[in-house]
Amino acid sequence: MKSYPAAIEELMLFLKQLPGIGKRGAERMVMAMLDWDKTDVSAFVDAVQRFASDITRCPECGNCAENGALCSICSDTRRDNSTLCVVENIPQLLAVESGGSYRGKYLVLGGKLSPLDGEHGENLNFDLLLKQAAKPEIKEIILALSSDVEGRATMAYLAELLKDCPAALTRPAQGLPAGANLSYADSATVAAAFTGRITLS
Amino acid sequence: MKSYPAAIEELMLFLKQLPGIGKRGAERMVMAMLDWDKTDVSAFVDAVQRFASDITRCPECGNCAENGALCSICSDTRRDNSTLCVVENIPQLLAVESGGSYRGKYLVLGGKLSPLDGEHGENLNFDLLLKQAAKPEIKEIILALSSDVEGRATMAYLAELLKDCPAALTRPAQGLPAGANLSYADSATVAAAFTGRITLS
Repeated sequence: MKSYPAAIEELMLFLKQLPGIGKRGAERMVMAMLDWDKTDVSAFVDAVQRFASDITRCPECGNCAENGALCSICSDTRRDNSTLCVVENIPQLLAVESGGSYRGKYLVLGGKLSPLDGEHGENLNFDLLLKQAAKPEIKEIILALSSDVEGRATMAYLAELLKDCPAALTRPAQGLPAGANLSYADSATVAAAFTGRITLS
Repeated sequence: MKSYPAAIEELMLFLKQLPGIGKRGAERMVMAMLDWDKTDVSAFVDAVQRFASDITRCPECGNCAENGALCSICSDTRRDNSTLCVVENIPQLLAVESGGSYRGKYLVLGGKLSPLDGEHGENLNFDLLLKQAAKPEIKEIILALSSDVEGRATMAYLAELLKDCPAALTRPAQGLPAGANLSYADSATVAAAFTGRITLS
């Protein structure tokens, strides 16, 4: 025996495709699963199956949804239909939701333009964005992408793409994080906070 | 929406139990799976299912096997029945196999004694080891555990456990790795290599 049984090799091949998982990581994961109880393993099989059969993309915003339906945000009639928040991915959508102040709709772009990583925009939801942005009820589009180089380049591209759209284009404020000590803030953050300072009285 | 749909949360809960996978890692893995093609996802479901249904532990040695049968080593009649090599886990068994010089049988202990990690030996295959070691054909038992503190403590414990066993107890040689430059070897390895030096003529 120079290698694992076929069923183990095959499972490791799939796990290795996941981000952050290499050959050794996949091996450790499968070996750990070997030590699981039979009931845990079959519950895991059920969970993977349920994920594969139930989870789909929301056709309106690209968020995760169940059984081809609209996601919980797009199907919520109490949400504000006049604002659209563009995020890179679903974890970022959840981060905006955790803030609790935004009550509008979303559009999950599926990444950002990053030519060095081979992402020239073919896999990004630009068509869906244009379709949503063209809706007459949309009054504001918030571009909430990362403020790294790729995120800012993508925002500039989106601003160009949406220039004929009647909605106002905005982005979240940049400044000091809540509860931050000024002496520990990096220079770019301090500069942004002073450039965008707010009148108190 | 403050969290993911139930099917995603449940899958993340299982992934988080795997070694080296935290909350963020599990989230990244599931988000990557969301981007897979439908065919890839169903192939992954099949792979997990096949793993769960086909892979069992070999009743003779604790190695992974298929459908409750003996593993490929225990069922190989050309292997030497007189030596038994005790390893901690299946990746270590494969490492010994990759050496290509050992043609005997194995016993997978399932770990090593490590009181600080709560491993006092309840989960280790000591009973199976004693059963195999008692076989009259076994002439040599090789304790091929890690040479860290826990591995050496486990080897000392096994030497005590097997003291009434007629087979000879050995461990792999310690010394310089193949192709190593002496000036880069650590002091413990150099000491072991000089203590166990080999007569050339």
